[in-house]
Amino acid sequence: MSRYSKLPAAFAGAIGLAAALTAAPITASADDAPITLKTMGSFHIGGRLVEISGRPVKEIVLNAGGVPARIDPNGRYQVEQMYVQYFIPQNERGAAPLLMWHGGGLTGVTYESTPDGREGWLNYFLRAGWAVYNSAAVERGRAGCAQYPDIFTTEPVFLPVANPFERFRIGMGAGSYADDPDKRRVPEGAQFPVEAYGNFVKQIVPRWTSTDAAITAAYLAEVDKVCPCVILFHSQAGQFAFNVAQARPDKIKALVAVEPAAVGDPAKVDALKGIPILIVYGDYIPLDSRWPKMHQNGVDFADKIKAAGGSVDIVELPKIGIRGNSHMLMMDKNNLEVAAVIQKWLADKGLVR
Amino acid sequence: MSRYSKLPAAFAGAIGLAAALTAAPITASADDAPITLKTMGSFHIGGRLVEISGRPVKEIVLNAGGVPARIDPNGRYQVEQMYVQYFIPQNERGAAPLLMWHGGGLTGVTYESTPDGREGWLNYFLRAGWAVYNSAAVERGRAGCAQYPDIFTTEPVFLPVANPFERFRIGMGAGSYADDPDKRRVPEGAQFPVEAYGNFVKQIVPRWTSTDAAITAAYLAEVDKVCPCVILFHSQAGQFAFNVAQARPDKIKALVAVEPAAVGDPAKVDALKGIPILIVYGDYIPLDSRWPKMHQNGVDFADKIKAAGGSVDIVELPKIGIRGNSHMLMMDKNNLEVAAVIQKWLADKGLVR
Repeated sequence: MSRYSKLPAAFAGAIGLAAALTAAPITASADDAPITLKTMGSFHIGGRLVEISGRPVKEIVLNAGGVPARIDPNGRYQVEQMYVQYFIPQNERGAAPLLMWHGGGLTGVTYESTPDGREGWLNYFLRAGWAVYNSAAVERGRAGCAQYPDIFTTEPVFLPVANPFERFRIGMGAGSYADDPDKRRVPEGAQFPVEAYGNFVKQIVPRWTSTDAAITAAYLAEVDKVCPCVILFHSQAGQFAFNVAQARPDKIKALVAVEPAAVGDPAKVDALKGIPILIVYGDYIPLDSRWPKMHQNGVDFADKIKAAGGSVDIVELPKIGIRGNSHMLMMDKNNLEVAAVIQKWLADKGLVR
Repeated sequence: MSRYSKLPAAFAGAIGLAAALTAAPITASADDAPITLKTMGSFHIGGRLVEISGRPVKEIVLNAGGVPARIDPNGRYQVEQMYVQYFIPQNERGAAPLLMWHGGGLTGVTYESTPDGREGWLNYFLRAGWAVYNSAAVERGRAGCAQYPDIFTTEPVFLPVANPFERFRIGMGAGSYADDPDKRRVPEGAQFPVEAYGNFVKQIVPRWTSTDAAITAAYLAEVDKVCPCVILFHSQAGQFAFNVAQARPDKIKALVAVEPAAVGDPAKVDALKGIPILIVYGDYIPLDSRWPKMHQNGVDFADKIKAAGGSVDIVELPKIGIRGNSHMLMMDKNNLEVAAVIQKWLADKGLVR
């Protein structure tokens, strides 16, 4: 019996999750089975060409001991594309590709290995037979970023190492971080691998506050290329995924919102009524200064979708006996147990072959 | 017979490549065989913590409709780490892991799919059984970048779309690019998939000219973690790989320099004398304004290594009948033919099981 089939007994009691009562076991590869891919690869998509003019030409030595290269900053630039890395299993068992969209200040690395070196959700869903498209949004990681102030109109925001610790419910909120690891205050029973927090902060990349429209446009281009699909998204991507689904409802087989920090357009909930939606929240929400409000925003949005005739299941993990999860559920020590909740929901929605 | 075994008849005539005369056929998976991985994942490595102080606190709405977050720019920052994504085949056939290091303004995307969607060298060497560690250097892609001017002391350099076309021997040098694809001047017989040039420029990320020491330090950390290994490196990474090999000669089984734009320390060639080295150059070098000098730098460095008792094979691809290659050999239409030259050399050096 693989760890993929372990679900807490209390799971059946999840609020709004009547479908979970079906007794079919979750089947997926055992831990030590190979990941067998038909192919894998990557592409960039979206973006636009912009012109810059009137700037002086520079001569720059790009490599120590190299020959100076003439860099003319005038001309056309390619900006605002996004990056997508895909993995296609030899035996696909997902009913459609699974797109993974990361949160703010992060990249697709979110879903790869955990900071303490365990397998992440990318491997889990690949081993379960999903074709996975893991990406980096406009401005981030392998997507590249554009010039400030010429193209991005705001400057990049860099996060000090204390910030995610206090804001992602890894620690106990404001003031809980300390440079000395022994003095950091962590909630009792916390699942985040806090001993590897130093590896987690290495994943953080700069973000901009003026790029939402560009990010949404590139995600739309990805959906138009790859979908019909299921989109699994985290945190900041809540706004992008719900907005994109509202623009392309016919292309979305299901939405899995992992702690969405923002939602879609409340005036367009009608567009979502044919899409099965799962929203998952971790633990410690009342302990945080911002999460009670963001959580309520998600619940309110779900209520509007349901009032329009849609189907939304909200799983509060502590209420089904899965305790200790931070905002970074996919990295927590019980990350595969949380993934199994999602996999079971997808199976119950008929999306696993 | 798979495409991996196709080598030009003239191959045996390559300068300095006597070892290639051995007749053992190259064996690797057929094109349509699956890529079977024991596991895959990623990690960040290297870097340092720095302090910033005396800056004002900001309140920033990070997500449209979200709750403002307090961003205190003072404090500790994690900077100058690098990113490594690894793929471990179920049946390893390389004698050691193969590290792939990209060139300037680029990331590990270099070795993934080609701009026109074919399989790149990452898949080729995985299918041939190598454990591959594909990375992004400090400052780039999923490695993240640091603040200017607080941490990086120079501003980022962004490349206009014309620049790589004219500088990477994709076109005919300065003035050969035009916004209208039909008016771009390309050498006769060119192998770069020029119709997909627009996809290639989407891969380009900003670079800095003040980060060489930080990049080298992180590569050293990667080598200390992963090696003994073979390092395959491109363009700007020439300086990093040769310098790292000079610092850790006992950890390097072989070096494969793909059009190195810079080299190591000529005063330390002695350190390289026990490491088999292959240097590969493409076509059109005399047509370019900078490449004759950079090519000569590579040949001179190789001569110094050989004078110290080392072993360097230089393959000028046109001289073994492989014509039309740009600086981006791993993306050219004959990219797998070039990869097969490298794979054969590695096999001849006893590094393929």
